[in-house]
Amino acid sequence: MEAPAYQRIAATYRNRIMTGALRPGDQLPTEHDLADQFGVARQTVRAGLGVLVTEGLIVARRPRGYFVREREHMIYRPQQKSRPRPAVPEMDRFSEQIVASGRKPSYAIEVALIEAGADLAERLRVAPSSTVVARRRVRFINGEPTNINDSHFPIDLVRDSEIMLPAYLPRGTDQVLVELGYPQHRAIDEILVRMPTPDEIHRLGLGPGTPVAVHFDTGYTSDGRPVQCAINVLPGDRHRIVFERHFA
Amino acid sequence: MEAPAYQRIAATYRNRIMTGALRPGDQLPTEHDLADQFGVARQTVRAGLGVLVTEGLIVARRPRGYFVREREHMIYRPQQKSRPRPAVPEMDRFSEQIVASGRKPSYAIEVALIEAGADLAERLRVAPSSTVVARRRVRFINGEPTNINDSHFPIDLVRDSEIMLPAYLPRGTDQVLVELGYPQHRAIDEILVRMPTPDEIHRLGLGPGTPVAVHFDTGYTSDGRPVQCAINVLPGDRHRIVFERHFA
Repeated sequence: MEAPAYQRIAATYRNRIMTGALRPGDQLPTEHDLADQFGVARQTVRAGLGVLVTEGLIVARRPRGYFVREREHMIYRPQQKSRPRPAVPEMDRFSEQIVASGRKPSYAIEVALIEAGADLAERLRVAPSSTVVARRRVRFINGEPTNINDSHFPIDLVRDSEIMLPAYLPRGTDQVLVELGYPQHRAIDEILVRMPTPDEIHRLGLGPGTPVAVHFDTGYTSDGRPVQCAINVLPGDRHRIVFERHFA
Repeated sequence: MEAPAYQRIAATYRNRIMTGALRPGDQLPTEHDLADQFGVARQTVRAGLGVLVTEGLIVARRPRGYFVREREHMIYRPQQKSRPRPAVPEMDRFSEQIVASGRKPSYAIEVALIEAGADLAERLRVAPSSTVVARRRVRFINGEPTNINDSHFPIDLVRDSEIMLPAYLPRGTDQVLVELGYPQHRAIDEILVRMPTPDEIHRLGLGPGTPVAVHFDTGYTSDGRPVQCAINVLPGDRHRIVFERHFA
């Protein structure tokens, strides 16, 4: 049995996008042209394209039409975090990377004292519901929200340090931890994939069909004590996560 | 203005799940009890829980009720791939890991000659539409489909080798490449996050609200030639991707 017409339209354009015949930013034919081409009503065309909107493959920009979604606005490299850099750099790593690509980085920062949930308590090895310091940032590129970077610290370690101030720290919190006597030696990166919460949809301005990667970055001192846990929320349409690996 | 009742129900249980107050596998109260508790119709309860099903946080197991979705069936460690192991092991790495956790691994394998799409051609540095060998596997744990592992090789490299046979290779294709004179020296791991295609939903038996991580693993010889590119499709509800990192 042949698939319904709206599914055939969706399958045709899904295939062109997945094989690269249509590239990010390319415009699809108009609803009118597609209706002619497939010999169906515009309503059917709209249902077919709606499937691809929900899958996050295309976006509707009314009144201009439908476009292949542009992805990969940022190459996200957790390994950069553990590479040496000047103790007093002019900019944090995110800003350096964005400026290097000719774009403008900015931040919204707030600091809060929160109760550690189960995920965080386990990673920081503190009792559930202990107080931890949350340094919450939304990072923007050219004024568009790009990702969430919420860093968490056991309160005993960072009380009275600059980490408690909701201000931009060009040298980064890892360097402040070094100065406080807690240099990180090793980190575990964990990546989970899920649909965003309503709060994340709101903070990041996410469209339909946009899942997120949640990147937990837990840093340990040389004696194995966890001293920070960042929870980064990376929208799937704006990030490519990259690691490099050498064979032993 | 207060949020509609179905949204309040969704927000209440979303919060309990996200904070860990409700754990994977826990059962939610019945629709009847929730209707009583929130003072609303069962239809409203169902709409609220429907939001969480779409978000992938809970599953409906009729007639028993709603349960917090169980996640993290597999810890997925790309770095293991580049660590030394016996040249003639009894099992491949995936099987070793699953057997070690007391579960039963299995595979469906097929080998196909395909035209390289843009993504693959770029990574393997072959002309678009060149023929490449695709070794496609669905990996199962206890009979349940877990992930897709499609490895791709330039045809010149692997013609007439065991890689062309749709049979289980306990020592793995990396070892066959070593024997053919193409040992891998370095790999790039790239992780993208998106909604699954209908074909992936079908092959992996995915439920609603289940995004996937797509892990590209491209391996290079010491002179920088790409010799294989695997495209792994990892459902968000079944994987936690883990890397370990040391500070320089």
